[in-house]
Amino acid sequence: MARYDDLWRERYGAASTPTPCPVSAAVPLMEQMLAHRTVRAYLPDAVPQDALQCIVAAAQSAATSSNLQTWSVVAVRDRERKARLAECAANQAHIHEAPLLLIWLADLSRSDRNAQRAGSASEANRYTEMFLVSAFDAVLAAQNATLAAEALGYGTSYIGAMRNHPAKVSAELKLPKRVFPIFGLTVGRPDPARPAGIKPRLQQDMVLFEETYNAPAQAEAQAVAAYDEVMLGFQKAQGMKPMPWSTQSAQRVAGAQSLSGRDRLVSEIHAQGFELE
Amino acid sequence: MARYDDLWRERYGAASTPTPCPVSAAVPLMEQMLAHRTVRAYLPDAVPQDALQCIVAAAQSAATSSNLQTWSVVAVRDRERKARLAECAANQAHIHEAPLLLIWLADLSRSDRNAQRAGSASEANRYTEMFLVSAFDAVLAAQNATLAAEALGYGTSYIGAMRNHPAKVSAELKLPKRVFPIFGLTVGRPDPARPAGIKPRLQQDMVLFEETYNAPAQAEAQAVAAYDEVMLGFQKAQGMKPMPWSTQSAQRVAGAQSLSGRDRLVSEIHAQGFELE
Repeated sequence: MARYDDLWRERYGAASTPTPCPVSAAVPLMEQMLAHRTVRAYLPDAVPQDALQCIVAAAQSAATSSNLQTWSVVAVRDRERKARLAECAANQAHIHEAPLLLIWLADLSRSDRNAQRAGSASEANRYTEMFLVSAFDAVLAAQNATLAAEALGYGTSYIGAMRNHPAKVSAELKLPKRVFPIFGLTVGRPDPARPAGIKPRLQQDMVLFEETYNAPAQAEAQAVAAYDEVMLGFQKAQGMKPMPWSTQSAQRVAGAQSLSGRDRLVSEIHAQGFELE
Repeated sequence: MARYDDLWRERYGAASTPTPCPVSAAVPLMEQMLAHRTVRAYLPDAVPQDALQCIVAAAQSAATSSNLQTWSVVAVRDRERKARLAECAANQAHIHEAPLLLIWLADLSRSDRNAQRAGSASEANRYTEMFLVSAFDAVLAAQNATLAAEALGYGTSYIGAMRNHPAKVSAELKLPKRVFPIFGLTVGRPDPARPAGIKPRLQQDMVLFEETYNAPAQAEAQAVAAYDEVMLGFQKAQGMKPMPWSTQSAQRVAGAQSLSGRDRLVSEIHAQGFELE
């Protein structure tokens, strides 16, 4: 693995000055996190069950609101089921290619069943707050899972497009009411013949504020212009079609048509039994 | 740090059989994640700026949907501001005590400003989908931040109660429209005189399903009963008031009154400028 300082410069640009990591014992984890990249090219090697169990142990070790544990995950390895799920998600090639697809679930159904066994109501689960609690629980778990997978030598890619057709995904996975597929995660050995680079990010003072939110217009415009240059260099190095980040990002949110059907998300969540009150 | 097998048994109960970690190089990160516990007792030592920058570099290294980077974070160290924010969040003692409070933000305002500079609309930001994209981005970032903080020797606690009074929090932090505080995170050196234990979780087959969702009623009831026993043992060991997890969890979702005001969340999110269409 590359050295900490080199990774920092890949993340924030060659001209940036790495902040020294204050505790040397922390370097391995910091290095791994800084080295994160989305992997969309996989070898066919299966992900064995013991690796999956380690990944899920990491996921369960993440914080969960009030220890309610309102998330679940479905591990899909069957090629045909995976292909059908890929069709729900813009038919992305790496869903077909990855040996393992994890579908992360906001799951209030276990909480409902628990309340039923206790003979009490679960009225709070009707509220948007509880939908968010369960979705956030699932996201926290998924991020630990991602890091565990990477520590085990796998690469991953989050699949937000799994929200394009939630009803189809829910039917395929036999999800009960009050369970919603928030995103997928492909897992597999990265194909060394098709490596992915570390994507640069906005400079830190664009996202980190001290005491109160403060984004001066001119400084932000300058920082975005500088980031556009960094991203153009990254795209060139990766053999990608160059387009300034600011342009790409503006196009991505211009209208409802760019949401690939996810402008219907509220009714899809309703259809899965969440009232969102 | 305790050994991997011991940590696994703390997480899944003394009678469980640890799944061997398939790659030895992965052990340090797996150990750290398995060793996670919520820390609510802090020493007064400040968190220096270089540590905060490492933590935020880790956060920015997490995946972000379409590289839109629709999250931000405010670092609050000022004692009086922190006290006012604590009052917004059930006046939890550890918010006062922690030297650093991070408020994680779903932030579509930067995307709006970017679109404005590009002379285009940002109609997609009106939709629930984009609110969730920005909230999920913030959660992924926060979980990397938590792990980086722990690697640096700090302890953390997520503060979901920061959603009790989002309008007050937003005013205190001077948040513009289309920025929403999704939760807080306290950070500080754990006080060794008041240690926290590793909280056990449900057994893995309660949350991990193969190919399709499958939660047989009898197996679930048995697993929950067994977990109740494990949790009673944990509570006893920690000097906590014992209550079966199944009872506690049922009470937590019984009615809207248990949401501490968060039954109003939809109107609070609207008030911050998200249309949630």
